[in-house]
Amino acid sequence: MSYFPEVSTKVPYLGRDSKDPLAFRIYDASAQVGDRTMAEHLRFGVAYWHTMRGDGTDPFGAATRIMPWNAPSDPREREAANLDAFFEFVTKLGVGYWCFHDRDLAYEGENIDDSARILERMVGLALKKQQETGVKLLWGTANLFSHPRFQAGASTNPDPAVFAYAAAQVKHAMAATQTLGGEGYTFWGGREGYDTLNNTNLKQEREQFARLLWMAVDYAREIGFKGQFYIEPKPMEPTKHQYDSDTEACLNFLREFGLMDHLKLNLETNHATLAGHDMAYELRAAREAGALGSVDANTGDPMVGWDTDQFPTDVYLTTAVMGEILAMGGFTTGGLNFDAKVRRQSIDPVDLFHAHVGAMDAFARGLQIAHAIREDGRLAAHVSERYAGWQSPFGQKVLAGQASLAECEAFAKANGEPVRHSGRQEMLENLINQFIL
Amino acid sequence: MSYFPEVSTKVPYLGRDSKDPLAFRIYDASAQVGDRTMAEHLRFGVAYWHTMRGDGTDPFGAATRIMPWNAPSDPREREAANLDAFFEFVTKLGVGYWCFHDRDLAYEGENIDDSARILERMVGLALKKQQETGVKLLWGTANLFSHPRFQAGASTNPDPAVFAYAAAQVKHAMAATQTLGGEGYTFWGGREGYDTLNNTNLKQEREQFARLLWMAVDYAREIGFKGQFYIEPKPMEPTKHQYDSDTEACLNFLREFGLMDHLKLNLETNHATLAGHDMAYELRAAREAGALGSVDANTGDPMVGWDTDQFPTDVYLTTAVMGEILAMGGFTTGGLNFDAKVRRQSIDPVDLFHAHVGAMDAFARGLQIAHAIREDGRLAAHVSERYAGWQSPFGQKVLAGQASLAECEAFAKANGEPVRHSGRQEMLENLINQFIL
Amino acid sequence: MSYFPEVSTKVPYLGRDSKDPLAFRIYDASAQVGDRTMAEHLRFGVAYWHTMRGDGTDPFGAATRIMPWNAPSDPREREAANLDAFFEFVTKLGVGYWCFHDRDLAYEGENIDDSARILERMVGLALKKQQETGVKLLWGTANLFSHPRFQAGASTNPDPAVFAYAAAQVKHAMAATQTLGGEGYTFWGGREGYDTLNNTNLKQEREQFARLLWMAVDYAREIGFKGQFYIEPKPMEPTKHQYDSDTEACLNFLREFGLMDHLKLNLETNHATLAGHDMAYELRAAREAGALGSVDANTGDPMVGWDTDQFPTDVYLTTAVMGEILAMGGFTTGGLNFDAKVRRQSIDPVDLFHAHVGAMDAFARGLQIAHAIREDGRLAAHVSERYAGWQSPFGQKVLAGQASLAECEAFAKANGEPVRHSGRQEMLENLINQFIL
Amino acid sequence: MSYFPEVSTKVPYLGRDSKDPLAFRIYDASAQVGDRTMAEHLRFGVAYWHTMRGDGTDPFGAATRIMPWNAPSDPREREAANLDAFFEFVTKLGVGYWCFHDRDLAYEGENIDDSARILERMVGLALKKQQETGVKLLWGTANLFSHPRFQAGASTNPDPAVFAYAAAQVKHAMAATQTLGGEGYTFWGGREGYDTLNNTNLKQEREQFARLLWMAVDYAREIGFKGQFYIEPKPMEPTKHQYDSDTEACLNFLREFGLMDHLKLNLETNHATLAGHDMAYELRAAREAGALGSVDANTGDPMVGWDTDQFPTDVYLTTAVMGEILAMGGFTTGGLNFDAKVRRQSIDPVDLFHAHVGAMDAFARGLQIAHAIREDGRLAAHVSERYAGWQSPFGQKVLAGQASLAECEAFAKANGEPVRHSGRQEMLENLINQFIL
Repeated sequence: MSYFPEVSTKVPYLGRDSKDPLAFRIYDASAQVGDRTMAEHLRFGVAYWHTMRGDGTDPFGAATRIMPWNAPSDPREREAANLDAFFEFVTKLGVGYWCFHDRDLAYEGENIDDSARILERMVGLALKKQQETGVKLLWGTANLFSHPRFQAGASTNPDPAVFAYAAAQVKHAMAATQTLGGEGYTFWGGREGYDTLNNTNLKQEREQFARLLWMAVDYAREIGFKGQFYIEPKPMEPTKHQYDSDTEACLNFLREFGLMDHLKLNLETNHATLAGHDMAYELRAAREAGALGSVDANTGDPMVGWDTDQFPTDVYLTTAVMGEILAMGGFTTGGLNFDAKVRRQSIDPVDLFHAHVGAMDAFARGLQIAHAIREDGRLAAHVSERYAGWQSPFGQKVLAGQASLAECEAFAKANGEPVRHSGRQEMLENLINQFIL
Repeated sequence: MSYFPEVSTKVPYLGRDSKDPLAFRIYDASAQVGDRTMAEHLRFGVAYWHTMRGDGTDPFGAATRIMPWNAPSDPREREAANLDAFFEFVTKLGVGYWCFHDRDLAYEGENIDDSARILERMVGLALKKQQETGVKLLWGTANLFSHPRFQAGASTNPDPAVFAYAAAQVKHAMAATQTLGGEGYTFWGGREGYDTLNNTNLKQEREQFARLLWMAVDYAREIGFKGQFYIEPKPMEPTKHQYDSDTEACLNFLREFGLMDHLKLNLETNHATLAGHDMAYELRAAREAGALGSVDANTGDPMVGWDTDQFPTDVYLTTAVMGEILAMGGFTTGGLNFDAKVRRQSIDPVDLFHAHVGAMDAFARGLQIAHAIREDGRLAAHVSERYAGWQSPFGQKVLAGQASLAECEAFAKANGEPVRHSGRQEMLENLINQFIL
Repeated sequence: MSYFPEVSTKVPYLGRDSKDPLAFRIYDASAQVGDRTMAEHLRFGVAYWHTMRGDGTDPFGAATRIMPWNAPSDPREREAANLDAFFEFVTKLGVGYWCFHDRDLAYEGENIDDSARILERMVGLALKKQQETGVKLLWGTANLFSHPRFQAGASTNPDPAVFAYAAAQVKHAMAATQTLGGEGYTFWGGREGYDTLNNTNLKQEREQFARLLWMAVDYAREIGFKGQFYIEPKPMEPTKHQYDSDTEACLNFLREFGLMDHLKLNLETNHATLAGHDMAYELRAAREAGALGSVDANTGDPMVGWDTDQFPTDVYLTTAVMGEILAMGGFTTGGLNFDAKVRRQSIDPVDLFHAHVGAMDAFARGLQIAHAIREDGRLAAHVSERYAGWQSPFGQKVLAGQASLAECEAFAKANGEPVRHSGRQEMLENLINQFIL
Repeated sequence: MSYFPEVSTKVPYLGRDSKDPLAFRIYDASAQVGDRTMAEHLRFGVAYWHTMRGDGTDPFGAATRIMPWNAPSDPREREAANLDAFFEFVTKLGVGYWCFHDRDLAYEGENIDDSARILERMVGLALKKQQETGVKLLWGTANLFSHPRFQAGASTNPDPAVFAYAAAQVKHAMAATQTLGGEGYTFWGGREGYDTLNNTNLKQEREQFARLLWMAVDYAREIGFKGQFYIEPKPMEPTKHQYDSDTEACLNFLREFGLMDHLKLNLETNHATLAGHDMAYELRAAREAGALGSVDANTGDPMVGWDTDQFPTDVYLTTAVMGEILAMGGFTTGGLNFDAKVRRQSIDPVDLFHAHVGAMDAFARGLQIAHAIREDGRLAAHVSERYAGWQSPFGQKVLAGQASLAECEAFAKANGEPVRHSGRQEMLENLINQFIL
């Protein structure tokens, strides 16, 4: 049985001239770009939650997507059907990775043990699917935000009993990730924030959060989990303010609690823009701190103020993202996870293909462009030249921390008024457009 | 000669029933609130730059405020007239502190030595004024953003010659602050950011910034300056992105470069909101990191996206600010510096009085309310009770970092489904309004 | 049986010194303010949907509020229990009005006739409740956004069959409103917008919207409904862009389609701010166009970009709202409908009381202040004086449309450079604060 | 003498493979796209103010661009040098149109007559330049916002003497536009708004604004000016709120005062986004109201909240703009005026070339893509098909205003539950990307 009969086998690569909306025009998994194939560079992942569980609900309306894999009334059968549909989808799409939330993969049971058993069973089924298809797990995570018990936070809850519950869930989600050979494990703290400062002990809540992360680090050691931990910044929504609001807030938090060696960042475009930052900045800041891990590949609408998690199609964005990834030498454990959902009116299973195919082409093109810009070298040369003065003895002394204000003054007096140079912003924007237009 | 004839002597305190727009209705410098007088709590400062130099210019129009203290055509006379007017203003307002930028206090000379001489002369005059009036210097700073040479940054400039120039200026501004007995020295990095990532070496620029701060720390030691250093977060404007964008970005930066012991934060409401944060959050986050130093007391317009630096009159804001200040035990070196400017259409000298008098009353009322809320105790008791579970053995073990995921799971299983409690947000907002309405 | 045992009888007015969180400190229904009582001025309404149906769901989490009135498993019993609870609530709160959506008051049936019967039955029960309690209906409306059939709009749907469905629903909702003696009927077009321009015929969709409004006008005539129609601006959410985005967009639409005589505006604070406007501006613009009808009394969080529908407690907001209402001579058919919901963590029935009581006090205080400012007269006098020049013959000639550019030039030459005056913005803000602080 | 020696003659078109930053890769003036040449489609204009007068000043810093055409100390010589440089620039760029503000073209004199004489002289010189070069005037305007006399508005000033002054200036600017054969005249009301509602008579100010526009209409008739009037929406900046805030506010205003036949809209991307709208929406709404006139071709930064007036290089934006222009049958009187300024660090004359060349290429590419999408026809066919149901008898009856709620209900009952269709947003975004990637 097929859940996606519109897509008979694997989505083909047909090249630039194709008008087939269900074929790749640019993404060719095995095509070489520099020292890797496109597939190796991009490491696409499909998100189980949005793809299987997204139903078009929004704050003002009920579900619009009634998917065939949810038809079975028995929850065990339904979960299995979801898994079948998902791996059919991923396989036809030709993507190498997937990601999951525990509670989206497996429904919640009557208590911790029951939930654990249900998850374990699904993990067993998923493992078999992985083996059959060769699809691998990019990362797993625990959903610590949907259930009402987490209304006031998971690890940052005023009630330690909720902390304990969350910790139990993380333990099982980590074990599941380990079983599935996951290359990473992600913390997204949707409720790890506050709705009002009036009832909040901010200091303690941040400490609680750190405690959970340290327990996870310890548990990984215990079970031999070698995957990379990620923390995923988001400034707000669902809460008014989340503690891991952006790259710098995460870095500050990790430094404060000694966790810099244990977690990297999983950055998401729509979260960056909600925080008022370009995604390019967030990536750059994380990369230069040695903390860029993985990317949630979606986009938002700059004219609206909530998380739309749209599929990214803007080649300026994909070029910027791939530029940073290439600059860090490519992904190691991370990848491009499509944490993106089709619009509420996109109600057919085939819309999931349209969405992923278009986004993959956009990223493939972004990769080509970013690579070409690096090969071309003019952009990098411009930057080097702009800072060339810092290679001077004086510049090096300052950077080495060996100069004083007085020495600087002496230099400045001797040097006279500095010569100003154009920043050439427009020329550089045009230079990038030479590769796009 | 008087620059403010409308205000004959000192602005009087006339109490709540007064309708006199040029009298205090609430601010009574010597009135006791808890263990300090209002003056001791609030430590108001007047900003030399906005008060003397603000001329109503905006990006679409020329100066509207033609002030009598700028009448002299000779720059030396004009600077002296400005100083006279300023101290007349501060004295009549009855405020204990002032703040200055080097280049607003003293015009720039033909070269570094010349500028230093001009600044020194003005510092001499200012010192005399301080002695005559008893007014003290809250903090000084160097203007490293107005001059074209800083177009691409001061310490973060691609050209080390500009770094050197900036360092020279900091050296003299610090010396001036020291001479004037300043209780602090502030770094606001208006140009310490980028306009486009395309031409920017982000990593090196942040290192350059850190180098300047360390030189300042060293120089302070050298000259025996005991004042507190502050760094002032602002996310953008004039540049697209400033490196000290918000509290957490500053803390991350200070931790990364080992500067946490040497700088505290000078927070400004309008900068907080431009970064997408409530001022209350920025204050809380800084305070709990032990890094809250001083406050630039202004406000923005939440419906516009640039820095309006308006005089604060909203008692909810002033209550929130004073609540955090009281929670940290009151200001030590810091204070409430009115980094605020009258609107473009407020063209008379007397408008400066209206602006400061109203804002001082708003802060005095905020202090009364914040103090009353603390005395009342219900708000704090509610918070303590909400987190009471963390006093349990299990809670304490977790906080002490001695529990594991497995222990948490065991606790969670034994405990069963946690009981959920109302966050009582509306009740708490009403509770605060009991002190305001 | 009582759903709100914590509130034994009616919420009492205990005056300013009361610390009872479930008593009014300011709102005293029968207290005279100017020529009306507080109740007559404020005309509070409770919204059936948020109060009864709000369950704390958000885009990232399931319902947190499990209310006793939803306990019955039989839908008829459940609806009746909701109605009982609601009128218990409104009566104890001491509010004179309520508002409803058809589909929140009565569940949807299997088809149009079935739904109509269910609604009719509930209307019958509600009518009895109204008669028993004296509570009146401020306005009714049809929910044309929650059901999946409205995914692409109701009246603005690309499919006329959905338009027809929406029209049928409006017909029954209007009839229900008529039966209940409603003083108004509101159109809020949650889905009357687009998600992407790429698939949208904007011009035709706006015409479709107008056609529905005209049908409603005709139907009102037919059934003798004398209530006021309202249109409620909102710029976005749930769609990317709604056609009735703000006051001016609504006025433009009403003028374009000849509907100015038939609809007024129902303005909501949180919708105003999402559109980038102060609520005060939206009210002023609507009032001066003769189109201000009613108010949805809530507030948003200026730091987040979605509709939070919070209970309003900020006295600056309530003062501004009541100032505009007083300026238009008070409400006629409209009122202050609390289209507001308690926070997701406010899970107890009593939180509904906290929320409404606090907001009513905030509006009562706003009314007192706005009235006092008008009585005082200084603010209005300042404005009159500022524009006094327009009372001159030249000014009057210009305003009468009888002057030409040439005449203006002649006047300008004769007059010379105009004298500039301070706008006194700070003084006026302080003047308002004299009534608040 | 040349002001732009880096660009020896006219910027050449060298085609896609060119790496020359000072050549067009795409814009080929005489290339045919559909029924017009690129030059005829795009009708580029250069803005005198930004190009000649822009000096890099921002609210935190002094001028950075010291241009050779400002070297002469005599104002008459300086103005003439500016004109020389400007026409050298426009000619070398190969653009057919220019736009001016009176006060940027000609400095202000000692009084109205003096200013008129200065303007007249410059107009004479400009006319000669036009004749020599064949460059034409797209539109003229009066700068009614920079001078302090306009601090509280021009036509909307509380003082009719300022209104008169503004009217005189409009009269002369219109006459100048007429002399120069301008195809349009624009009103941008930078100060036609308020800073605070507290001191504002909103109703009267809007009437004053309308009076000025009517006088201009009358004066045009008088002098035989046949050009198109434009009004240019902007929501805020420099004031807190401008009355012509966005397309719908302008349309509402024009309808209210009977001006719809006399003014069209001059839309600007950065103003659209400051108002919270996509430029595509603003264009569509204006076009469908028959009111789209001309375009100020720039862009903003979605992450900052002020008007950056950047040169547009984003091909998605230029495609959207040109799509709307093609949909209206192309420009008639309007064009693409580069109301854009180079960044503060772009301090060389050649940066002006980089900026314009890149933006022209981006628009040429947008034109090609928009044209190709129209030729392809799939997008339009999809939209037609989506609304096909409205071609049915029932649909047509509704659109003709001949159906009632009851008839709709009958139709809905007979029809049953409407069938829902996917909105295909992702597929359509991919379809557009087929022409871009």
